[in-house]
Amino acid sequence: MKIALVGIGKIAVDQHVPAIANSPDWELAATVSRAGTVDGIEAFTDIATMLEARPDITTVSLAIPPVPRFAYAQAAIRAGRHVMLEKPPGATLAEIHALQALAQAQGVTLYTTWHSRMAHAVAPAKAWLAGKTITRAHIIWREDVRKWHPGQDWVFEPGGMGVFDPGINALSILTEILPAPVHLQAAELEFPANRQTPIAARLQFTGNITADFDWRQTGPQTWDIEIDTPDGKVALRMGGNLLEIDGQPAQGENTIMDEYPALYARMADLICQSRSEVDLAPMVHVADAMTLGRRTETEAFDF
Amino acid sequence: MKIALVGIGKIAVDQHVPAIANSPDWELAATVSRAGTVDGIEAFTDIATMLEARPDITTVSLAIPPVPRFAYAQAAIRAGRHVMLEKPPGATLAEIHALQALAQAQGVTLYTTWHSRMAHAVAPAKAWLAGKTITRAHIIWREDVRKWHPGQDWVFEPGGMGVFDPGINALSILTEILPAPVHLQAAELEFPANRQTPIAARLQFTGNITADFDWRQTGPQTWDIEIDTPDGKVALRMGGNLLEIDGQPAQGENTIMDEYPALYARMADLICQSRSEVDLAPMVHVADAMTLGRRTETEAFDF
Repeated sequence: MKIALVGIGKIAVDQHVPAIANSPDWELAATVSRAGTVDGIEAFTDIATMLEARPDITTVSLAIPPVPRFAYAQAAIRAGRHVMLEKPPGATLAEIHALQALAQAQGVTLYTTWHSRMAHAVAPAKAWLAGKTITRAHIIWREDVRKWHPGQDWVFEPGGMGVFDPGINALSILTEILPAPVHLQAAELEFPANRQTPIAARLQFTGNITADFDWRQTGPQTWDIEIDTPDGKVALRMGGNLLEIDGQPAQGENTIMDEYPALYARMADLICQSRSEVDLAPMVHVADAMTLGRRTETEAFDF
Repeated sequence: MKIALVGIGKIAVDQHVPAIANSPDWELAATVSRAGTVDGIEAFTDIATMLEARPDITTVSLAIPPVPRFAYAQAAIRAGRHVMLEKPPGATLAEIHALQALAQAQGVTLYTTWHSRMAHAVAPAKAWLAGKTITRAHIIWREDVRKWHPGQDWVFEPGGMGVFDPGINALSILTEILPAPVHLQAAELEFPANRQTPIAARLQFTGNITADFDWRQTGPQTWDIEIDTPDGKVALRMGGNLLEIDGQPAQGENTIMDEYPALYARMADLICQSRSEVDLAPMVHVADAMTLGRRTETEAFDF
């Protein structure tokens, strides 16, 4: 199936382009970007022109930042194309509700992807936790924004989500593997004096579940989720890619795909089944944290 | 049907108690409050004791602030009681999703009330707008927080919503009467230097729809919604209670109930039909504004 990739930035080059290139399901048939291109692939600078010129391209994958994403998604769905959205799926919850209704009316597939849910340890951790009682869980998600978003000021602009841009990956795993839903009880958000989104957040959920997000960690990066039950402990390390049971590696053989190839395989499946998959639970927790969180001001941040 | 009212504060005394007293459907059988009581009605200070002592009370109405509300609602639903929630229904979206699932599992009615939707002009405005195209809409919701929430510091604490506490009333009307859903594109939020929630907000939605919320207006209070269409203009004034079409009063005869009596009548209907009514659209717009809004600091505020 032919696909167009919109937004040729870092995440597109690092993940989307190789995942599509190595997929048995997909052929990268066009790109849409004001700046980037992919060698040998027809390049457009605006989506309306691409949608008009290439009726053979039936699916559009959007890897642009969340704030401008709605207009692109709306245009593609109105033109009868299937759409997959990078995480977070948009800048607001209401716009995704609107896209969901539009996709249903148009009879096309809408897929709100959460790449971290495809990490290797997620499915086995979910299976291990099924039916168990959680007595405590703690997320530590600490990375260096300068390494992962070099110079990308949009992450600190309204709608850019700040430290929730990586933190939502942890929340996408948490909401996937927990046997029962939780909700936020309190949050502390640290805003740099010169920025509009938080650079650090500490969250407290029901069920003795806490999270520590920080975007100022240099050196080794930490993406860990530890969960205790009366029947033992499970930990997911390296962003959900390494599984530990009771402190011991429990990976075993691993034949499943990497994150982005798994997302593109899932999109192909959804289209074949004429289904959409729209799960906003991780984004609801972020919106709740921004609504309920206690704000403190911290040192100004510059790239 | 017997009902218990939880939270005997200003809104309970002003609205809930008289609405229940004058209702043909309801009998106020108990109150739960740490401070307030109602003359002649059995008073409890904690909900667990009331639920245990009064199995004859099948419905619980919660008029306490949003942050503590979840625990009360959960206790009542787990005890098999129907529950109605003052607006906003909670401090987070996720907790209402959880209550909705719990109410469904327990087979009881959950009703997230939005009292302003029951204002006199709302149903006629909705009928007039049906099938029309909106070319512009503007909300002006300006009131004096000292008058409506005297000394209530919780409105400026995390989860207290600030100026969205009244503003969500306007959004509850807007989301009820518009022929198609909209979503937020930008917002400006003014936070007093010493407070955790905004005292003023300006919102810009898709479809040329804007809102101006301010909690610092002394003198006459303003609660207006003006909507333009190619077929004429409609305005709702006085918090949705006065209707104007093309600048002329269009109220005509008015036999419908006031807001809170209408909510209690609706709750009785829902229970008779074994249905719940949970609409989070107004709260989603507030969460989106808190997530997407650009923040500015303004003068410190004290009651």
